Amino acid sequence: MFGRKKRRLDPLIRQLMEWVGETNVLYRREDLVAYECDGFTLKKGEARAVVFPADTREVAAVVRLLHRENVPFIARGAGTGLSGGATPLGGEVIISLVKMKKLLRVDLDNRIAVVQPGFVNLKLTQSIADRGYYYAPDPSSQYACTIGGNVAENAGGAHCLKYGVTTNHILGAEVVLPDGEVIRIGDEGIPDMPGYDLLGLLTGSEGTLGIVTEITVRILKAPQGKQTLLAYFDDVEEASRAVSDIISAGILPAALEMMDRTAIEAVESANFPVGHPLDIEALLLVEVDGIEAGLKSQVEDITELCRRRNVREVKTARDEKEAAAWWANRKTGFGAMGAISPDYLVQDGVIPRSTLPEVLGKIREISRDTGLRIANIFHAGDGNLHPLILFDERKPGEKERALEAGSRCLKVCAEVGGTITGEHGVGIEKREEMRFVFTKEEIAAQIRLRDVFNPGNLLNPGKGFPQPGRCAEVKQEIKERRMAEG
Amino acid sequence: MFGRKKRRLDPLIRQLMEWVGETNVLYRREDLVAYECDGFTLKKGEARAVVFPADTREVAAVVRLLHRENVPFIARGAGTGLSGGATPLGGEVIISLVKMKKLLRVDLDNRIAVVQPGFVNLKLTQSIADRGYYYAPDPSSQYACTIGGNVAENAGGAHCLKYGVTTNHILGAEVVLPDGEVIRIGDEGIPDMPGYDLLGLLTGSEGTLGIVTEITVRILKAPQGKQTLLAYFDDVEEASRAVSDIISAGILPAALEMMDRTAIEAVESANFPVGHPLDIEALLLVEVDGIEAGLKSQVEDITELCRRRNVREVKTARDEKEAAAWWANRKTGFGAMGAISPDYLVQDGVIPRSTLPEVLGKIREISRDTGLRIANIFHAGDGNLHPLILFDERKPGEKERALEAGSRCLKVCAEVGGTITGEHGVGIEKREEMRFVFTKEEIAAQIRLRDVFNPGNLLNPGKGFPQPGRCAEVKQEIKERRMAEG
Repeated sequence: MFGRKKRRLDPLIRQLMEWVGETNVLYRREDLVAYECDGFTLKKGEARAVVFPADTREVAAVVRLLHRENVPFIARGAGTGLSGGATPLGGEVIISLVKMKKLLRVDLDNRIAVVQPGFVNLKLTQSIADRGYYYAPDPSSQYACTIGGNVAENAGGAHCLKYGVTTNHILGAEVVLPDGEVIRIGDEGIPDMPGYDLLGLLTGSEGTLGIVTEITVRILKAPQGKQTLLAYFDDVEEASRAVSDIISAGILPAALEMMDRTAIEAVESANFPVGHPLDIEALLLVEVDGIEAGLKSQVEDITELCRRRNVREVKTARDEKEAAAWWANRKTGFGAMGAISPDYLVQDGVIPRSTLPEVLGKIREISRDTGLRIANIFHAGDGNLHPLILFDERKPGEKERALEAGSRCLKVCAEVGGTITGEHGVGIEKREEMRFVFTKEEIAAQIRLRDVFNPGNLLNPGKGFPQPGRCAEVKQEIKERRMAEG
Repeated sequence: MFGRKKRRLDPLIRQLMEWVGETNVLYRREDLVAYECDGFTLKKGEARAVVFPADTREVAAVVRLLHRENVPFIARGAGTGLSGGATPLGGEVIISLVKMKKLLRVDLDNRIAVVQPGFVNLKLTQSIADRGYYYAPDPSSQYACTIGGNVAENAGGAHCLKYGVTTNHILGAEVVLPDGEVIRIGDEGIPDMPGYDLLGLLTGSEGTLGIVTEITVRILKAPQGKQTLLAYFDDVEEASRAVSDIISAGILPAALEMMDRTAIEAVESANFPVGHPLDIEALLLVEVDGIEAGLKSQVEDITELCRRRNVREVKTARDEKEAAAWWANRKTGFGAMGAISPDYLVQDGVIPRSTLPEVLGKIREISRDTGLRIANIFHAGDGNLHPLILFDERKPGEKERALEAGSRCLKVCAEVGGTITGEHGVGIEKREEMRFVFTKEEIAAQIRLRDVFNPGNLLNPGKGFPQPGRCAEVKQEIKERRMAEG
């Protein structure tokens, strides 16, 4: 019986099973449903199979097989990405890296850690915290997202204002190229590597240039002290100006976050309320860190700058517990939208800090025009906006209007000299919006660059660029194959 | 008379003059001598001409002309590079960017400055210091080197330990591609740009991918306070271990430099002596910066860590003037070799910090084997070695032995898991040593990447990779042309 069932299997699935073991391949439609999108849920597709390799050798073997068979494939971590970078367009084999989740080495003398791609971001800090170290990039999904996924998307986070995004913390990687060749790039803490900066090129390439199977990251000594402040404003513009004032004054907070009224309504209605007043127009959440002795004067300076912008109230967290509660309230902010809206779409634009009041005004206009509420929770310090467009998918046309509103928000960002993504990536979500910031020639140059590593465009096709690449073909292929299989 | 002279001119020179003006083209052999090498003086070549464009339009016009005529060309800044990146191999037209030296814009609100490529590094800090800002990357040649050259070489400097190298401070650029097309890449302070990281790829590409004609850089608020320490050691290994101890203790100095006995002899014999004892084996020059209140405890901690490694003496600079004298003594260290040796070759390897004692021992062996003295002045904090090989070019065979010793030093770096350049680049100097750290396949992949932007390899041919590219051909061409011209 089992034998007969196997014989009916897609021969590719059988070959995949030979490499990674039978239990490490999913191929039934019901099993594939969980992989039809990532954290960007508005577009979905069906994979041909999902495989779970155990090590680099297995990844390379699977890739060689798929390359030889001309089958498109996608690397996937925890699937928390917000632009659809790990979403199948139809017919790809997903190479899930969640079984490759070891912390391989910690070397405090040289301040590095070596991890497998499926290792969860937050676990790294948890593993080294007792020795006084941490890993800086902290996407809000850090309790779940993997460092491999962070490399693919060049993930940011609240503390990237002071400490930089993922690319600033990656020192080396083992990479399986799209033809199955395994290379190592970068090294342990070299300021300027010889040759071109392939590691920088790979980081943030949204899974289109190679699959990382081992990553060397920089770890940092935890700062001696921290202070967390909350500032409540009756006016969004005043809050925005306070942000510029703080940075212009030469203070570089570890984090400088902003939420507007709608966002506050959501986070206070969800799982981690902390008692923010519901009648303010904006709040700033500010963290300063460093040598204990210097923190007090920074807190005083920030407080004073907020006062000059007519802040209603500024308070400092009494203790770590209170600060942690404020952060949990902030970091679960996107999900909190569920408390006030059936669906939401988060966007990710970047603007010069000084244009913040102007851009927030234009986002309010978009909200009025489309009749959709838009909440704003964002990394104000580095001008990285996250408009959250609230809608109800059940109401006809609302999803489309939400997508339209998101796109218009990005256009506003591009128009003031910013860009269309700060940390979430382009994925499938913002492919067309690439045209807001790049000319046809610039996009063509990028694609030529991709083709150096990924000439057949088998690895994560259709992502990152306006051209749908192989997607249409692939969709047709899977349809025909399914029909042939009956 | 003049007319006749002009008619005898190489027609290319005449066309170049049409674009940039007659006085902005050098072509006589005696004028070209100054351009036959850069700061790496051991290999020289003859350019066909040197042009001095005034703006982007002229650069693009010149490039289009050279591209059409299939003539190789090189962009050049101040010519302070140390690996021969701007050295002609024979027959290239040098596009000097020294006339494009304007500071175009300073925007303190968004903490950026926009400069032309010929703008001198140190001038940027000088222009904004009164407002409390500075530009972080500080190569020792910063009084002369240009920011355009810094981008090409991804220049480092003493303070890059804490603040990172050039690539960490470049936010955007206008670039003339090798076919004369002008593009803008990057933007003002975007954490993670959409698309591939072309700006990162360009930075440190040693002038092989494009010519930067405008650069947007990040400027930083000057730290509130600084303290500078000197620690004198009777033993090199103890000094090396003190370096590791300081970093492992979680202190991140702004700079952590080391000089050995031979280097101290040189700097004390040259133009900026400060009275270092001549009988010590090594000194550390350490700068900590940040909030005034925190500096004292850092100085105490560093002093204590040095004591545990049997330091002979640790002292703190009494005032800024004394600190500046110590820094001048250090920053002119390479040139100071002239006081104790007719010639010297500086190398630029990187090693994991923890291997410092082992590697310094191996460099001493190389010195014994080759019979050449080797001084070491280097960025100890990030393991970036600069062995200075002392020799006398007039003595037959010494130059060759010096080059051999330099290459062996790099091999040692590669063998302990480091690499062959930390900040000076590959240029023509370390082309063959690329093989120490890259496989043939990896080098081929890099060349494919170059070919995306520079398909004819007309822009700075023969640099950065083992393959001599067009050099041999080019040399033959110029020879034939000269013969034909009589």
